[in-house]
Amino acid sequence: MNVRGKHYRTIWPKPGNERVIQLIDQRFLPHRFVVEDVRTVAEMAAAIREMHVRGAGLIGAAAGYGMYLATFESDIEAAATELKATRPTAVNLAWAIDRQLKSISAAGTAQDRQRIAFQTAREIADEDADYCRRIGEHGLSLIRKLSEQKDGAPVNVLTHCNAGWLAFVDYGSATSPIYAAHDDGLPVHVWVDETRPRSQGSKLTAWELGQHGVPHTVIADNAGGHLMQHGKVDAVIVGTDRTTYTGDVANKIGTYLKALAAKDNGIPFYVALPSSSFDWNIRDGLNEIPIEERASEEVSHADGLHGGDHVEVRVTPEGSPAANYGFDVTPRHLVSGLITERGICEATEESILALFPEHRRA
Amino acid sequence: MNVRGKHYRTIWPKPGNERVIQLIDQRFLPHRFVVEDVRTVAEMAAAIREMHVRGAGLIGAAAGYGMYLATFESDIEAAATELKATRPTAVNLAWAIDRQLKSISAAGTAQDRQRIAFQTAREIADEDADYCRRIGEHGLSLIRKLSEQKDGAPVNVLTHCNAGWLAFVDYGSATSPIYAAHDDGLPVHVWVDETRPRSQGSKLTAWELGQHGVPHTVIADNAGGHLMQHGKVDAVIVGTDRTTYTGDVANKIGTYLKALAAKDNGIPFYVALPSSSFDWNIRDGLNEIPIEERASEEVSHADGLHGGDHVEVRVTPEGSPAANYGFDVTPRHLVSGLITERGICEATEESILALFPEHRRA
Repeated sequence: MNVRGKHYRTIWPKPGNERVIQLIDQRFLPHRFVVEDVRTVAEMAAAIREMHVRGAGLIGAAAGYGMYLATFESDIEAAATELKATRPTAVNLAWAIDRQLKSISAAGTAQDRQRIAFQTAREIADEDADYCRRIGEHGLSLIRKLSEQKDGAPVNVLTHCNAGWLAFVDYGSATSPIYAAHDDGLPVHVWVDETRPRSQGSKLTAWELGQHGVPHTVIADNAGGHLMQHGKVDAVIVGTDRTTYTGDVANKIGTYLKALAAKDNGIPFYVALPSSSFDWNIRDGLNEIPIEERASEEVSHADGLHGGDHVEVRVTPEGSPAANYGFDVTPRHLVSGLITERGICEATEESILALFPEHRRA
Repeated sequence: MNVRGKHYRTIWPKPGNERVIQLIDQRFLPHRFVVEDVRTVAEMAAAIREMHVRGAGLIGAAAGYGMYLATFESDIEAAATELKATRPTAVNLAWAIDRQLKSISAAGTAQDRQRIAFQTAREIADEDADYCRRIGEHGLSLIRKLSEQKDGAPVNVLTHCNAGWLAFVDYGSATSPIYAAHDDGLPVHVWVDETRPRSQGSKLTAWELGQHGVPHTVIADNAGGHLMQHGKVDAVIVGTDRTTYTGDVANKIGTYLKALAAKDNGIPFYVALPSSSFDWNIRDGLNEIPIEERASEEVSHADGLHGGDHVEVRVTPEGSPAANYGFDVTPRHLVSGLITERGICEATEESILALFPEHRRA
């Protein structure tokens, strides 16, 4: 999507020198826009591990390009191991690396390996962008219907965390229908949950929407219920870290509270996801998906810009413990629909498997 | 309650020199404990206006002591006007000032006025503390019952914002049953919502619980639903800015989301309030209680301690608008009970008026 009026992806081969991979170093957003040159497997591993890049789709693409860089180094197997160890829980990471290993194994010469690995890395990135683009096309129909119901008044979409193009290669998942509507001339306005404790809404979603010119307003995570009670939200669209084949949605902590409020106020609650985010093995999301507990400092502290410097401040009193749960599970009965690259389905086993029949069990 | 092992109220006449009123200047909490000497009406007006003191009960007590200070100055009516203008929406403010004007009107000499005003100010403060203490006694029965059901394992109470002793003269409303249980030897642990955007939970509730020795854990506002889904919350207890005589509860933004989650998980949701927080005129809380919109900087920024200094940081990108709704309304059907100084009642017109029959209409 656009940054300062120019189209960007989150990761790309450097124009004129494809031996170098460039990516947006997201650690400095929204206060500084930094593009990083990555030349080695070690540099790409650090970029993934230290969260210069984050988000399932983007991690997969970064791993794919990391394996391309590996073809210029001595030990491809060691590179695969190093890259896989960066974020052990991201399924796209291992998937992209294994796909590269398989492609490369067919190559004869070193040059062949480099050429094939480059092509595969591009395919992984292009597929991610293409899937997200198609999520946008399908989701656009939902926003268009709401827009017609409102006689062209802006459609107010609430989103939580960052399931934007910064988490993928382009378009994003939850944001893709919003960008599609905006680019299509439909008036749309986004309520951006700040998403404590890491504030991905305030920092990333607000930034990317602003750069692309989409009207939006940042709100405290506490505000969404009140807005829904007063008719100020027409739809909720969020992403997901993992959705069971039965329709239970694991996503950033706090998603469940917004789903409850949407249900209570008769507002549709959609989850946008590429099919790679489905877990085809887990039946009961609430009881079977493990919930990551993260460092308590994310809750006790906040960070941002102060006098030109990026600083961290402690909000809580010294000695008060804090707990930091990374995500929660929204039960399927609170979900109005899943927006995938193949179309929209209900959050039920039957409807999901009708769209993805290859995952039916024998 | 206790601060560093010593009992404090939030406001009191200076021992040995009752011509001076002392109060905890809450602007510096939790990072510094500052006691301010207040000698004039202008100083007390500034303390209320600039939120050295806040919370309905404490504002009333501060206004009462402000009117006592007025008896040493020339124009009592002008002092009343000045004090009333500090926080126009706080009902306790005008109520305390009018009560003082009525008391003073009976006095003959200037000395009489000073003596009567001092006595009335003390009564206002003592009544506030007494009402809160009684809320604690009634609420204790609920916690004791939960404790018995848990065979003495700690009772986990979730609270939102600060309805603690810092918002009153002593004990608090939502915290009073918690302090009563703790002081009675019942094991209790409090989940403290940080309560963005002003973080009264992180800053004030965590501090006062910590100082009194009550086990507690600060969480992001997003986390409560997840904790309730997993059996980690036994009861929610919150305060209120205004509760209709029909049982609708206006409280800090985000309260409604926690009430929805409590309902969804079969967890009792209690509201603790002195009867001065009832609005005896409004029937429909959701449609009739006006919602304050506050400065957007509270959402775009955060503040805390950095290298020993209290600094503010901007979290959002420059140019991204933010909106800041001060409170929301929890509909009566989500409220399990109201804990008042006279006892516990249901959040219904019938039950409320049975406890406060003097407010029945002819």
